[in-house]
Amino acid sequence: MMQSSDSQLFSIEIIDGFARAGFLKTSHGSVPTPAFMPVATLASVKALDPSDLLSLGADIILANTYHLYLRPGVDLIKDHGGLHEFMSWPKSILTDSGGFQGFSLKHLSKLSEDGLEFKSHLDGSFHNFTPEAAVQYQRGIGADIIMPLDVCESADSSKQEIEDSVERTFRWLERSLTVDISKEQFLFGIVQGGMHRDLRQVSAEKTTSLDFPGYSIGGLSVGEDKLDMYDITSYTTSLLPEAKPRYLMGVGSPEDLVESVARGVDMFDCVLPTRIARNGALFTSLGRINIVSSKFRDRKDPIEIGCDCYTCLNFSCAYLSHLFKTRELLGYRLATIHNLRFIMRLMSDMRHAIVEGRFQSFRSSFNDKFVAPNSLVRHEQKKKWLKSLKPS
Amino acid sequence: MMQSSDSQLFSIEIIDGFARAGFLKTSHGSVPTPAFMPVATLASVKALDPSDLLSLGADIILANTYHLYLRPGVDLIKDHGGLHEFMSWPKSILTDSGGFQGFSLKHLSKLSEDGLEFKSHLDGSFHNFTPEAAVQYQRGIGADIIMPLDVCESADSSKQEIEDSVERTFRWLERSLTVDISKEQFLFGIVQGGMHRDLRQVSAEKTTSLDFPGYSIGGLSVGEDKLDMYDITSYTTSLLPEAKPRYLMGVGSPEDLVESVARGVDMFDCVLPTRIARNGALFTSLGRINIVSSKFRDRKDPIEIGCDCYTCLNFSCAYLSHLFKTRELLGYRLATIHNLRFIMRLMSDMRHAIVEGRFQSFRSSFNDKFVAPNSLVRHEQKKKWLKSLKPS
Repeated sequence: MMQSSDSQLFSIEIIDGFARAGFLKTSHGSVPTPAFMPVATLASVKALDPSDLLSLGADIILANTYHLYLRPGVDLIKDHGGLHEFMSWPKSILTDSGGFQGFSLKHLSKLSEDGLEFKSHLDGSFHNFTPEAAVQYQRGIGADIIMPLDVCESADSSKQEIEDSVERTFRWLERSLTVDISKEQFLFGIVQGGMHRDLRQVSAEKTTSLDFPGYSIGGLSVGEDKLDMYDITSYTTSLLPEAKPRYLMGVGSPEDLVESVARGVDMFDCVLPTRIARNGALFTSLGRINIVSSKFRDRKDPIEIGCDCYTCLNFSCAYLSHLFKTRELLGYRLATIHNLRFIMRLMSDMRHAIVEGRFQSFRSSFNDKFVAPNSLVRHEQKKKWLKSLKPS
Repeated sequence: MMQSSDSQLFSIEIIDGFARAGFLKTSHGSVPTPAFMPVATLASVKALDPSDLLSLGADIILANTYHLYLRPGVDLIKDHGGLHEFMSWPKSILTDSGGFQGFSLKHLSKLSEDGLEFKSHLDGSFHNFTPEAAVQYQRGIGADIIMPLDVCESADSSKQEIEDSVERTFRWLERSLTVDISKEQFLFGIVQGGMHRDLRQVSAEKTTSLDFPGYSIGGLSVGEDKLDMYDITSYTTSLLPEAKPRYLMGVGSPEDLVESVARGVDMFDCVLPTRIARNGALFTSLGRINIVSSKFRDRKDPIEIGCDCYTCLNFSCAYLSHLFKTRELLGYRLATIHNLRFIMRLMSDMRHAIVEGRFQSFRSSFNDKFVAPNSLVRHEQKKKWLKSLKPS
């Protein structure tokens, strides 16, 4: 067992209500929190290059171990000096463990006490993700922050199934700790427990008993109601040590980011901003627009007046509408730049508000303005997305 | 008739053999020649943004009138302040006339003395391109340099057909001159005549009798043998006034650029560098490589050591190979950046060699090193490409 608890990953600068402003410090730099991590599934944030990410203000990104394990392979990445070098990304990287793919690719995975067995969605070959192997892969990839393999259940699992997943996640966590990682890497603990407060409590108590440098909150944003998610987020952060960073996995949308920061979360990742951008759905301070709609065909304004992203500073809605209609590759890139910059600016605005002790008023004025898609639409989109992960 | 012959488009700095170094001067800046124009068919050089183009050293790009006329429409572009404003491109733009689409989309076009009638490849609607309309469209788009509608024949057309195309192209040219254009726009003449010296001579004499600010050489790179193309290029440039810029339409490959500059051509456009980039074919000083080949899977070197493009300065062949295998959008962008920078650097290297009076030795050493795909491969690729332009 080798943990990096001697070097300090996280420091809190200030707390405003439950919202926290702080810094993560990895060997690849300092990350102001609350932080959003753009998702680079296959060693690339889709349609962007590293200099784009730096321009957008990204300090940390997330990559997916399962996908990188299949292509190009952990050994190749390791042989090329690690993922930072391979993808030319100088700042911090967090990797997931493959646990979420055990949920999203359920039809291709088999769960046992030993771990997850995947049937590759590419060629049907079989691959074993044990808790030990998941950490070894991430060590090889060279992630700054490593996730342990966990069992993620869906919102409609039975309480017994969720209780089992909490127990198994903890046994796997103990096994994860048997693997040596570099002194510069940090392994988080993951708290599961679904929508059950008592199970969240059991999971948090067991997990925090092992004293990790940070804690992930798993099993949310998997189909449950938004208000339930907020409620469990509040409850779970209340069970975690104040001094350690909290990472809410797979969140979020602008409104979820604001509401989760309000509940004491420090780190986030989500494919939503980049995925919907490639479908033409773009964030504004009033809510989402879809650039493909005919009303934008002629509009000379940028997506949002006052937005400081490269896209808004240079292009009209009409031009973006044209690029989407003609399926020009540039459209995907410009839309992604806008949505990610919107999220990065939101995180930075939240941080400033916290530091200045006015987070509650920031939150109210954001929520007054920003109209989120209603939950029915949101559920449908999520279902469609999860379905899209399954090969047809 | 309103021609901009009072303001000077072109100035020659120096001539070395038949190769010339000069400048085009439009209201959007100065363009050192010989110049290659990246192709922005639909108001975007595929996968790149304007700041990429500036970084690559592009001073002028080409856009396609026929495609822009269909989407987003000439009126919309005009209403948005012209194409420069619409696509946020501050430097010069040349537009073609639709004449080439009369050749490449022959199955969708009907040729008459009046002009070309197109059946839209998008919705089957009919559209009339008269010589007058083609100039009006380009005036509306706001191109710095405008092409007249011409008749382009393929390499296997009969001599009579080519003679007819020369005559009609000239009659259309006279009609083009009846359309007012802005004082800041320049209308070129186009010389046709296929592979027949006598027809090239007739076409050049008629066209130059009208004193245009520049001359295009059409009807080459349409399936003929490379050496025949070089021969006709030499012959045609010898018929054109020395003081005016010569634009060889639809060329080219690195070897064709060098051989055509050697024959007195000043301007070029071609989709080849960007199109093959998206298939993973990348230029090096030794010839083309294909990054999808398994031998690059593991290679830590960039595409070409010493290349100053963003791609080579930051990424290995292994990373590019991974992006192509996983069809990540970033791959298309990085490959396009590399190929266009290769071409831009080649143009700039040729220009320096001309200015320093050592173009012949530059040409020899380029040709000694650079292995072009053999003509059989080239013909097959061209045929495939032309076929790909036809909707399936």
